[in-house]
Amino acid sequence: MPYKELFDKIRNVCYLGSAGGILGWDQEVMMPKRGIEMRAHQFAALSSVVHDMFTSKQIGKLIRQTKKEKLNEAQSVNLKTLEKEYRKATKVPTEHVAHASKIKTHATEVWREARAKSDFKKFAPHLQKILDIEKKTASYINPRKFALDVHLEDSDESLTCKKVDVHFKKIKKAILQLLKHRHVKPELKGAYDVAKQEKICRMVATKMGFDWDRGRMDVSTHPFTTGNCVDCRITTRYDPKEPFQSILAAVHETGHALYDLGLPYEHYGTAQGDAASLSTHESQSRIWENHLSRGKEFWHWLSPHLKKEGWNLTPEQCYGHVNAVVPGFIRVNADEVSYHMHVILRFEIERGLFDGSIKVKDIPDEWNSRMQEYLGLKVPNDAKGCLQDIHWTNGFGYFPTYSIGTMIAAQLWEKANKKLKLESDFSKGKFTRLTDWLKENIHQHGRRYDPDELIKRATGQKPNPSALIAHLRSKHIP
Amino acid sequence: MPYKELFDKIRNVCYLGSAGGILGWDQEVMMPKRGIEMRAHQFAALSSVVHDMFTSKQIGKLIRQTKKEKLNEAQSVNLKTLEKEYRKATKVPTEHVAHASKIKTHATEVWREARAKSDFKKFAPHLQKILDIEKKTASYINPRKFALDVHLEDSDESLTCKKVDVHFKKIKKAILQLLKHRHVKPELKGAYDVAKQEKICRMVATKMGFDWDRGRMDVSTHPFTTGNCVDCRITTRYDPKEPFQSILAAVHETGHALYDLGLPYEHYGTAQGDAASLSTHESQSRIWENHLSRGKEFWHWLSPHLKKEGWNLTPEQCYGHVNAVVPGFIRVNADEVSYHMHVILRFEIERGLFDGSIKVKDIPDEWNSRMQEYLGLKVPNDAKGCLQDIHWTNGFGYFPTYSIGTMIAAQLWEKANKKLKLESDFSKGKFTRLTDWLKENIHQHGRRYDPDELIKRATGQKPNPSALIAHLRSKHIP
Repeated sequence: MPYKELFDKIRNVCYLGSAGGILGWDQEVMMPKRGIEMRAHQFAALSSVVHDMFTSKQIGKLIRQTKKEKLNEAQSVNLKTLEKEYRKATKVPTEHVAHASKIKTHATEVWREARAKSDFKKFAPHLQKILDIEKKTASYINPRKFALDVHLEDSDESLTCKKVDVHFKKIKKAILQLLKHRHVKPELKGAYDVAKQEKICRMVATKMGFDWDRGRMDVSTHPFTTGNCVDCRITTRYDPKEPFQSILAAVHETGHALYDLGLPYEHYGTAQGDAASLSTHESQSRIWENHLSRGKEFWHWLSPHLKKEGWNLTPEQCYGHVNAVVPGFIRVNADEVSYHMHVILRFEIERGLFDGSIKVKDIPDEWNSRMQEYLGLKVPNDAKGCLQDIHWTNGFGYFPTYSIGTMIAAQLWEKANKKLKLESDFSKGKFTRLTDWLKENIHQHGRRYDPDELIKRATGQKPNPSALIAHLRSKHIP
Repeated sequence: MPYKELFDKIRNVCYLGSAGGILGWDQEVMMPKRGIEMRAHQFAALSSVVHDMFTSKQIGKLIRQTKKEKLNEAQSVNLKTLEKEYRKATKVPTEHVAHASKIKTHATEVWREARAKSDFKKFAPHLQKILDIEKKTASYINPRKFALDVHLEDSDESLTCKKVDVHFKKIKKAILQLLKHRHVKPELKGAYDVAKQEKICRMVATKMGFDWDRGRMDVSTHPFTTGNCVDCRITTRYDPKEPFQSILAAVHETGHALYDLGLPYEHYGTAQGDAASLSTHESQSRIWENHLSRGKEFWHWLSPHLKKEGWNLTPEQCYGHVNAVVPGFIRVNADEVSYHMHVILRFEIERGLFDGSIKVKDIPDEWNSRMQEYLGLKVPNDAKGCLQDIHWTNGFGYFPTYSIGTMIAAQLWEKANKKLKLESDFSKGKFTRLTDWLKENIHQHGRRYDPDELIKRATGQKPNPSALIAHLRSKHIP
């Protein structure tokens, strides 16, 4: 049974990879400050071991043997996906993988300092190194392809820069129109106790179906989700002046977690046990964030609970708050409308860095002039500009999935809500019919279909921005 | 430079090992309940990779090459220690290591359930498996040696069952006499807020010299320390009815942490960057626990701080509390005197399991009859008896180091205090002259000398129970 032997070995590689996931979580949530150097070494050692094991000749041999075996459809998909990844991985030398891991972990710490001092120059040489490494990695994998496309494919195998560009042009046009209609954010007074915010975040996650025996919720500078279907960890962050940010982040990350927890454990280590793509993953967080926690019904249900905590916020105030369109500097705090301009701006810069039209040293200028043009904002410093996000320390090609995922979320929501009429559930604090629908239509399939195909099966249409644009227009044009 | 190449490779193995340490910490402190199965797989994968890398032919070849190189004294010690470990490790097959890791991780979870239900029968088959595995491991390493001695050597290469027996006979005799003088524990009333306890634990750890940039303090069922000299993590546990347990545990674990943090980072991955033995490690926690936090001066300094938190405890009440001799069922809650009877009892059972005079199924009876004989206690259930400790899930031969370490702690304290007159420092909350003395006499040497030699250099005497017995007598005989 070469199929069984092959995937037993692959699972072992996955276990080591998932150990790395815990270390990454620990680094963001728990690790003492000076632990970073050891952590960089741990990651480098782990990533080179994982790479060595995955790209071993033994795996290659087992793949060839398995191809001769009689397989069912699901097994064929698993083998095909694995073979594609194996071919890709064997092209990248182990030393390059270990080197890249070390550079990236170190760059993450430099980025932290640089952001604290709002000093892009401090970060620039590290970013340049990462850019060089990413170009080199892409050239190992496919020297004839545009390097950013190689990385984009890593995030979502249905995506290319060209496709992203087509969607983003439409979204950009619609949003620049929408941004003419701005809404002032109602002012908040008083303090919102962090422990109470946490209690509410936990209650909402529970209502969404988060299984606390298989997960945790903690605090980190930037909210994130990591883990697997038996140990999935989400983070949020608390602002004592404003309780909405923590709730929306908790809802968003719980959406990611429901996907991870919904993947079939029995298929762990195969394509069917894995998420379809990072865009698909983002669609699972955004559908909850935008279509649940930015909806009227959610706040009608939640505001009495807020009142119990001593916070006198009407549903209308809450709704007004989370839907005010007030362009700002920070992507993760952005409203539902202007958000996409942050992603588009960054994608344009990423593409420029890869096609050579933008140099690393010019990033602040490029960033700031686009912020002025798209959102009418004068960036005061790099901490509020091009240094705000951690992601480039981990490479390129991931950012577009934020908007592509949001676009898909709108498609999924349109379909699910048409069928299930979810709003009345939501106003009663019942969210799990959506959880179930997503589990059936997205989660359970893992990576069995390619990302575009998966969305077409779920909604009848390939990924496209129509539903997103319609949703934003109906909500934000008075 | 084969020496450099060899230890570069060894460091990589250590990085993976230390990643396992973080996963272990996470399992006890953070992991969601159902994460255990994945964690067991992660440990198994990691331990087999570590074993494979460490026992590779390439390491063997580099060792042989390095032996021909001209080395300084320190390098020679590093090489000698490494070669000994390499020889030992190459005798154990990788599959056996992975299998053992899985069995042990799983047994840990069964132990948790069995203890909760006080059901030894549930745990017994798993303990039997571990016993068989440990005997097998020992037979791989040295089939002619008594198997428990092989494991004991792992904890402390200066120890044998025979040596332990000689020390333990003396300690046992002295303690059985001392136990005739019992002290009633003063009754405590009121509640001791956990957040305030934590504040005090953190203050004491800080005074001892714990570096928060290189460490954390958290909560776990059983207090422990894990980590390395840039990322060292301690835990304690809080009882709202009694603030002393958390403080003593924090002092104890901080003692361990000061050792880890005091090991020279530049020698990481070599014998000189490693702790001398587990007994030595325990001596570093016990010297602080028994000779600082069970001393009069400590409470004279601390009780005004307790008063600030609203706890009206006189220094005499505190001292009386932490020094009351009241034999109980639970080792980790035991007083300074009866503590050793728990260790001795367990060592006797361990030896019996290995020489065949005791069967796994008979452990509860053996345990309970000794508890009756040594401490005059009738054990009500296994949770309070043979199921109380997690350690057997990780193997055998470790327990004696608790008492041997305490014995060494008394020797170190006698020497340091004679020279430095530390008590007056302690009454002012100044603890770092002891930290510095330990750093100079123990920490900085790592594993450069064998454990007996290290203690002889520090105190003028090889490990022996005289100082411990004198300390206990002077304190506990009225």
